Amino acid sequence: MSFVRNAWYLAAWSTEVPSEGWLARRLLGQPWLLMRCADGSAAMVADRCPHRFVPLSKGRREGDRLFCGYHGLGFDLSGKCVHNPFGGEPPEAACLAAPKVEERHGGLWFWPSEAKLADPALIPDFAFIDEGNPCERAVYTMAVNYELIADNLLDLSHAEYLHVESFGTNGSLHTHGKQTVKQDEDGAVWNLWDITNAVPPGWATPMLGEGERVDQWLHIRWHAPASLALFIGIARACTQLEPMFPPMANPHILTPETETSTHYFFTHPPGEEEARQARRVFLEEDEPMVAAQAEAMAGQDFWEARPVILPSDAAAIRARRKLMQMRRAEAAA
Amino acid sequence: MSFVRNAWYLAAWSTEVPSEGWLARRLLGQPWLLMRCADGSAAMVADRCPHRFVPLSKGRREGDRLFCGYHGLGFDLSGKCVHNPFGGEPPEAACLAAPKVEERHGGLWFWPSEAKLADPALIPDFAFIDEGNPCERAVYTMAVNYELIADNLLDLSHAEYLHVESFGTNGSLHTHGKQTVKQDEDGAVWNLWDITNAVPPGWATPMLGEGERVDQWLHIRWHAPASLALFIGIARACTQLEPMFPPMANPHILTPETETSTHYFFTHPPGEEEARQARRVFLEEDEPMVAAQAEAMAGQDFWEARPVILPSDAAAIRARRKLMQMRRAEAAA
Amino acid sequence: MSFVRNAWYLAAWSTEVPSEGWLARRLLGQPWLLMRCADGSAAMVADRCPHRFVPLSKGRREGDRLFCGYHGLGFDLSGKCVHNPFGGEPPEAACLAAPKVEERHGGLWFWPSEAKLADPALIPDFAFIDEGNPCERAVYTMAVNYELIADNLLDLSHAEYLHVESFGTNGSLHTHGKQTVKQDEDGAVWNLWDITNAVPPGWATPMLGEGERVDQWLHIRWHAPASLALFIGIARACTQLEPMFPPMANPHILTPETETSTHYFFTHPPGEEEARQARRVFLEEDEPMVAAQAEAMAGQDFWEARPVILPSDAAAIRARRKLMQMRRAEAAA
Repeated sequence: MSFVRNAWYLAAWSTEVPSEGWLARRLLGQPWLLMRCADGSAAMVADRCPHRFVPLSKGRREGDRLFCGYHGLGFDLSGKCVHNPFGGEPPEAACLAAPKVEERHGGLWFWPSEAKLADPALIPDFAFIDEGNPCERAVYTMAVNYELIADNLLDLSHAEYLHVESFGTNGSLHTHGKQTVKQDEDGAVWNLWDITNAVPPGWATPMLGEGERVDQWLHIRWHAPASLALFIGIARACTQLEPMFPPMANPHILTPETETSTHYFFTHPPGEEEARQARRVFLEEDEPMVAAQAEAMAGQDFWEARPVILPSDAAAIRARRKLMQMRRAEAAA
Repeated sequence: MSFVRNAWYLAAWSTEVPSEGWLARRLLGQPWLLMRCADGSAAMVADRCPHRFVPLSKGRREGDRLFCGYHGLGFDLSGKCVHNPFGGEPPEAACLAAPKVEERHGGLWFWPSEAKLADPALIPDFAFIDEGNPCERAVYTMAVNYELIADNLLDLSHAEYLHVESFGTNGSLHTHGKQTVKQDEDGAVWNLWDITNAVPPGWATPMLGEGERVDQWLHIRWHAPASLALFIGIARACTQLEPMFPPMANPHILTPETETSTHYFFTHPPGEEEARQARRVFLEEDEPMVAAQAEAMAGQDFWEARPVILPSDAAAIRARRKLMQMRRAEAAA
Repeated sequence: MSFVRNAWYLAAWSTEVPSEGWLARRLLGQPWLLMRCADGSAAMVADRCPHRFVPLSKGRREGDRLFCGYHGLGFDLSGKCVHNPFGGEPPEAACLAAPKVEERHGGLWFWPSEAKLADPALIPDFAFIDEGNPCERAVYTMAVNYELIADNLLDLSHAEYLHVESFGTNGSLHTHGKQTVKQDEDGAVWNLWDITNAVPPGWATPMLGEGERVDQWLHIRWHAPASLALFIGIARACTQLEPMFPPMANPHILTPETETSTHYFFTHPPGEEEARQARRVFLEEDEPMVAAQAEAMAGQDFWEARPVILPSDAAAIRARRKLMQMRRAEAAA
């Protein structure tokens, strides 16, 4: 299974990239260096010397130049070889892969295939991260393939089982919920759970009158390859969905580290306790289940394992089909 | 190398299966749940939800129903889907594999292929477990392929080397022993070592007169795929094999956990010290040698490794040939 | 990638082989026993019983005989089966592989393919080990393929980066050095770095007059498959290379343990501190870099990874080509 290459991926939050040195990170199976140039712009080059393949991260950076620690070749941050210790013109082939990078929504997005195809307008809209309540950006690396995590997010009914202690809806998702799956004009797949006139979840009861009922919505948006946004809200029943609180909006942006591991970019309210709690949901609720799924599949292809398909899988299936089409189109090109 | 599927395998001793919950065990490479129904009967279903493949053992059991912990599908203990939280008829394809199980000789035996082929009369006879001295049933998981362990058992001459401290016969197996290999009417392969008029083993000397000699027998019986029974006895020489003690009869029943690991079912006299001692023979004498063999073979097929065949291998070779024939017949069908 | 088989490999230093028992060592992917016979001669046999493949090193040695610890077959140190506990003639096929071994330069050299092709005159000349200053022979096992280590040694310019603290030449290798690559009459590849009229390295300054300049040479010799010798010297400039000290000569003899690990035979001045220091260069300078290279290549073939070739690679490339030719010739034969 190859990675989709004509797409924007989040490489890192901007705050992760130091002003000197680099952030070394494996993305789409390859090692990369993410850097801040002297002029403040972002740079990304392969962490692999073209001479003997050793990581440049075992060498050193001097200003906007990288020097290999093995035989001394030097490169600028656009990946061009600019120093050959043996004298003479540096060989032209001795350059580092350097994908197009865009800084947007507080993160560095990169386009793995040719730069000329990289249209910044295609970066999914995560402006809400800065527009809502203050939050901290975080990343966690999960030891499973990114498509399994996207499946998990695209079928939020799992919250009733896996997150029953945290996000559960008291079963009202099943009894009072309606699921809608749609695709919007820029190709995003949406899975909308709308719960109408239901008993409120426990945490909301104190803010409601005796016997009052609520409407809730759990909406998730997916952009290929796996940049997701989650929107959650609650309203008193029959108030035209007038939110009781500002609705919640959260990024769940997945970038493959390898075929079997994923960088999971998310946000949480500021504070260490909040960081721990967010991480706990990933570590103790989602990851063990999705990892058990990966282990059970034992490397088998999803479709060859012949899953039973339920109506609640509609969005996940649509996303998987879209990725499959993208892979096929790229393989054919 | 595929597993033989038209055969009875021991899945667990009856005592291992709790009256509530389950015993989760990998058998023939797949994960299974072994359970006791409310009516006391035994049940066995795949520990793998057909929807997203996660283990049902990460969910919960309620009476005679299992519920998946990921998206809530419910199954009865025959493997049928009986609950779909999204409403509507549960999808027909959403069922769990549930092989035929028979309880016999204090164990749960299962037949991996179609139930209609599963004739309980083919379960090998281990009635002696309950008929002899009281014993405890135990199981140990060995990190080697089951055929290598069966080879080990089918050539008991190794006792003179590997078990020289415990079961050795003072070399009399070689000097006074006669080996007979035969196949009985229900297809079992027997390897019979009969030692005649030999110096007694050290442990028996105190019970014998000065210079008295003995007859001994070490008989082992093999049923495909790898259910073995060991029968050992000793008699004063020239007494028509009148046993000095009740002869010993022990099950050595091997069920593949995976291609490279085996559940080894055995019995031992009651008591913790006896359990430790039995386990010690497996852990310190047999397993290191058979594991070294597996490591030396490094995944190579037994026949392709071109072993030198000795007369003492006759029974093991016959068993291997029989398994090969069964595999071929199953592959052709 | 198969190993070259028509070549001499160093199996062990003579001092490693005990007068009783054996040295068990994996070489070219296979397990071997290296032994000293009662008459003092060296012997080498496969550490693998031809009956059930278990290591003979799990058995015992009695005089010049080895006995398998599993079923008792006995072998002499030429690999012939000389004892069959079941009586009768030992089967002829039951012999151990026993390559031709020669003791030379304080080491045991073996020839993996047919003995009749093994010409002792082809063993590379390492007489200098005993002719120079007293030294201790040592071996270290590195977790990388031997060709990557040979590449490292055949391009000594890496000393300016990786060994800048220990062997660096203050950059004069690049500014005043001239590289020559040649092949001598017995097929050895030489990489010669000759540095002329350069500022002396720091460690030599105290022994020189103010502003005095030096000539230096770093010469390395490679015999297939990977037996290297390093010759280093320093002279006052314009003295016709009259050495200031006796030049240094060191073996760097590489024998594959497996495809991904290598026994690295070397020498160092006598003493524990000297042993530690030599080992430190391997452990802390060379191995981390070469291991990072191996990890980056992730099993990919060197040529398929399409390395950029620099003029300084000429000797390493010539050695790689020669090995490739040898492999092809052996595959064709």
